[in-house]
Amino acid sequence: MTGQVPVMLEKVAGPARTRTEDVVVRETAITLYLNNTELVTLICSPMDLQELCYGFLYAEGMIASAADVASFSFNEQDGLAWVETHRQVQAEKNFLKRHVASCCGRGRASFYFVNDTGIVPVTSELRISTSAIASLREQVEHRSALFASTGGVHGAALSDGKQILCFFEDVGRHNALDKVTGWCLLGGVATRDKMLLFSGRISSEILVKSARLGVPVIVSRSAPTDLALELANQLDVTVVGFARGNRMNIYTRGERIV
Amino acid sequence: MTGQVPVMLEKVAGPARTRTEDVVVRETAITLYLNNTELVTLICSPMDLQELCYGFLYAEGMIASAADVASFSFNEQDGLAWVETHRQVQAEKNFLKRHVASCCGRGRASFYFVNDTGIVPVTSELRISTSAIASLREQVEHRSALFASTGGVHGAALSDGKQILCFFEDVGRHNALDKVTGWCLLGGVATRDKMLLFSGRISSEILVKSARLGVPVIVSRSAPTDLALELANQLDVTVVGFARGNRMNIYTRGERIV
Repeated sequence: MTGQVPVMLEKVAGPARTRTEDVVVRETAITLYLNNTELVTLICSPMDLQELCYGFLYAEGMIASAADVASFSFNEQDGLAWVETHRQVQAEKNFLKRHVASCCGRGRASFYFVNDTGIVPVTSELRISTSAIASLREQVEHRSALFASTGGVHGAALSDGKQILCFFEDVGRHNALDKVTGWCLLGGVATRDKMLLFSGRISSEILVKSARLGVPVIVSRSAPTDLALELANQLDVTVVGFARGNRMNIYTRGERIV
Repeated sequence: MTGQVPVMLEKVAGPARTRTEDVVVRETAITLYLNNTELVTLICSPMDLQELCYGFLYAEGMIASAADVASFSFNEQDGLAWVETHRQVQAEKNFLKRHVASCCGRGRASFYFVNDTGIVPVTSELRISTSAIASLREQVEHRSALFASTGGVHGAALSDGKQILCFFEDVGRHNALDKVTGWCLLGGVATRDKMLLFSGRISSEILVKSARLGVPVIVSRSAPTDLALELANQLDVTVVGFARGNRMNIYTRGERIV
C-alpha cells in the first residue's frame, strides 16, 4: 500500500481558483494485539508496519530484542497486527498514564523518570564531522519523496556517519522513529556507533526513545525543547538542531561533533 | 511562566563554530486529576493551562461545557491540576485505546467512529473570502512570537472572519487546539460562525476535535491527510490546506470559501 492517495481539490492562487487533482498523505490505523489482548491502536502511515510494531513494543519496554517475539502476523485489510512473545509481558492497566507521562516534567521528576525506566546513559566513541552531517541530511532530503509530494509526513533515518542505512516516513513523528527502531531490532543492527537524522522537533519523548535505542547522536532540522536537552545531558546524548545546509546548532555533548 | 528558556549552545555555519546563548522552547508536564482520580499527564507548554485542561476534557467527551466543572485548581510548582465535575464522569479503564484509536482507519471504521461518539455534522452559514483567510493568516504569523524565537511550537487561533479572537501556542499540536477549545468554553463563545487557523497537519484527530467543537472551517499552512478529508466530508467541515500568502488548497466543502 502506498503512502499517498489522489484527491480532487481547488487550488487558489490570488484571484484564480482551479479545480484539479493532487495527492494527500494516507493515514490509517493499526490495532496491535499483544498475546491475544488488544494493546493499542496506532494512527500511522500504511508502510513498514512490522518495523512499527516492533519499534513501538521496544519503546514501551515490552520487548528487548526481536528474539523476544515468538510470532508476528498482520492483516493489512482490517488493520490488525498480532504479536506473541515468548515470555509474559506486563501490560499495565494505566498504560496511557505511563505513556503520555513518559517524561514527568522538570529536573527532579525527569531524574526519577530516567531511573525508573532503567535507561542508562549512552556510551559511544562515535565522532562525526559537521560536513558529514550536512551531506547526510541532504541525502535524506532527496530520499523524502513522500514529503515532497504530500508535505504531510515526518522522516527518520539511521546513519553510520558515511551513508544512510535506513529511512522511514510516517504521518506520526513518533512512528517514524519507532520504524527505525524496529528495523534495527529485526536486522540485529548495533546502534552505539550510529546517528539518527530526524525531521521533527526533539521533544523529551523523542530524546528518551533515541537514548533507549542506544543512539549517541540525534540530528534534526527542527528545534529541541528544554526538557529534551535536560534529559540529553543526563543520558549523554548529542543533540544537534536546526540542521539546514551547512548550518546547525549543537546543544549537548558537542565533543562528538568534530 | 514563559514559554522559552535560555540555553548555551554552539552555532555552526560552514567552518565557523561559535559558543553563544539562544533560547529553546519550554516543555513541561501537567498531571490532571479528575474528581480526585489521576486521569492523564499532558506534555505541554507551560502557558494557558486552565484552557488546556478544559479543552482536553471537552475533546475527550468528559465535559460538555464550562458549567459542568464544579471547581478547578492548579499547582504550577508541581505541575498538578484538579478538576471536579458536578456529575460523575465515566473515566474508562481503556482510556488509551479510546484515545489513540479515536479514528479507526478506513471508510467503514471511520463511519462507525463518527456514529459512536455522537459528533454530528457541522451546520453553518459562515462564508469567508480567500483574501480574508490570507489576511488573517498573516496576522497569526505576526503574533507567533514564540515560534519566531524558538521554532518549536504549534499555533491555533479562532477567528470570526474579521479578526483573531484568540491565539494559543504549544509544543503539542493537539494542545494548541485544546487551548482554543478551553477558551471557547470558559468564555461561552459560539463556534458555528467561526474558523480555526492552525499551523500543523490536519490529521483525523485534529479534524474530529474541530468538528466536536462545532467549527465549520479549518485552515492550515500544512497538509491534510486522506482520513481527515474523509471525515471532513462526513462531518461537513471545510478543510483548507497549504495556506501560504495568497495561495491555498480547498479540499472539502468549498462553498463556504468565496
